[in-house]
Amino acid sequence: MTMIGPYSFEDYLQAVESFHGSVAPGLLVGGFMVDLAMKRMPEGALLNAISETHACLPDAIQLLTPCTVGNSRLKIINFGRFALSIYEKDSGEGVRVFMDAGRLESWPTIRAWLFKLKPKAEQNRERLLAEIREAGQRLCRVQPIRVDRQHLHKKNKGRISSCIECGEPYPLQDGPICLACQGATVYVSIPDRQQGRSMHLILVKPQHPGRTSRGLVGNCGMCGEPYPESDGPVCHACQGESVRVIRD
Amino acid sequence: MTMIGPYSFEDYLQAVESFHGSVAPGLLVGGFMVDLAMKRMPEGALLNAISETHACLPDAIQLLTPCTVGNSRLKIINFGRFALSIYEKDSGEGVRVFMDAGRLESWPTIRAWLFKLKPKAEQNRERLLAEIREAGQRLCRVQPIRVDRQHLHKKNKGRISSCIECGEPYPLQDGPICLACQGATVYVSIPDRQQGRSMHLILVKPQHPGRTSRGLVGNCGMCGEPYPESDGPVCHACQGESVRVIRD
Repeated sequence: MTMIGPYSFEDYLQAVESFHGSVAPGLLVGGFMVDLAMKRMPEGALLNAISETHACLPDAIQLLTPCTVGNSRLKIINFGRFALSIYEKDSGEGVRVFMDAGRLESWPTIRAWLFKLKPKAEQNRERLLAEIREAGQRLCRVQPIRVDRQHLHKKNKGRISSCIECGEPYPLQDGPICLACQGATVYVSIPDRQQGRSMHLILVKPQHPGRTSRGLVGNCGMCGEPYPESDGPVCHACQGESVRVIRD
Repeated sequence: MTMIGPYSFEDYLQAVESFHGSVAPGLLVGGFMVDLAMKRMPEGALLNAISETHACLPDAIQLLTPCTVGNSRLKIINFGRFALSIYEKDSGEGVRVFMDAGRLESWPTIRAWLFKLKPKAEQNRERLLAEIREAGQRLCRVQPIRVDRQHLHKKNKGRISSCIECGEPYPLQDGPICLACQGATVYVSIPDRQQGRSMHLILVKPQHPGRTSRGLVGNCGMCGEPYPESDGPVCHACQGESVRVIRD
């Protein structure tokens, strides 16, 4: 029976669908790759992982190993290659698994997918998944690697302080104010209803009108109007609403 | 009963332990934050997410929303703040949830943890988890946000080609050779056994001696010795071994 990590092939498909949202080809290839890597590693070792791409592969790693982005044991370092490494946390020694393009002659549908030779709408998805299942680990190659010592250890965030601009905790090593207040934001500035505009999305920058304890009256984070903070993070009216945008 | 997304509090702890590896305080706070955000979003909307930190929060998002790093619906943009946004994929409209440091007066153990006022060994873990459970969403504030249009859509990788250095598929827009071959690597260069050294970890750079079909004799990716490629990605001998490093 084809196994991927602890899963039967069918159970792995279910796990992928539930976590990733769809049975993406990259998760199938990735499953075989992670399985191959994990079998090369000593049992009981504390393992870390690197994905050399953002696409799909990180989810196969997160499903099949103890390494996740949130526990800092999976790093995504975008070299644009569909490859991953699993290695011992302290020594950096382990294996790299990559797709061997030279072996794709016998798997034309996989080749067309990997090299994006056809638009997605023209790809035969069933055939692609069947080819991946048939090819399995024969698509992959394994290399021993050692990860450079400077990439092995988590950087310490150092002291945490409240940003004097937005009031939120941030690592002091980022500067006198947090990175977001230094301008590194992804949010657009939106006029505040409190400033007399009829646009109802409020400013991105959090407002901290000197409140230091619960039980005080503050401005609702949703509509901007005063309310008793003991009601929760937004006022009762807004607790009943989903996001609503009313334009000018 | 305290619920976090679809989970009872106890089931959420189990899900966290299984995915993240431990019941980290950041996953508990994060669970309340994600739950708060998701309740503000319209049902059935196609949602994307941003985590403003690498630490813990991405895993709460991946557990409780359809957004993962591998399906590109979760982006981690490190502003160093313990905050997240959930927003509609196309409009960018949604909510940001952050921890309100001004509300931590009543929760000294949470405050000490968030601001790292005590070394980890001196923290009272049980008390910390109990405080987080008690405080729940009262720790958080919600802001409506709109994500800047330029950050909304996935960048297309464009054409994929085989790198003429390493032979692996890579996005042609990265340059004439892939980023790794341009020098952007995390691996140290290791002497190759085939070059007569007794160090048994082989070169990181993949070797592609002109093989274009299966069934040929190639060099084993593990020990570097010639073997029939039909045996699999590594030779039979190496299929029975875990990673073994023999030094000079």
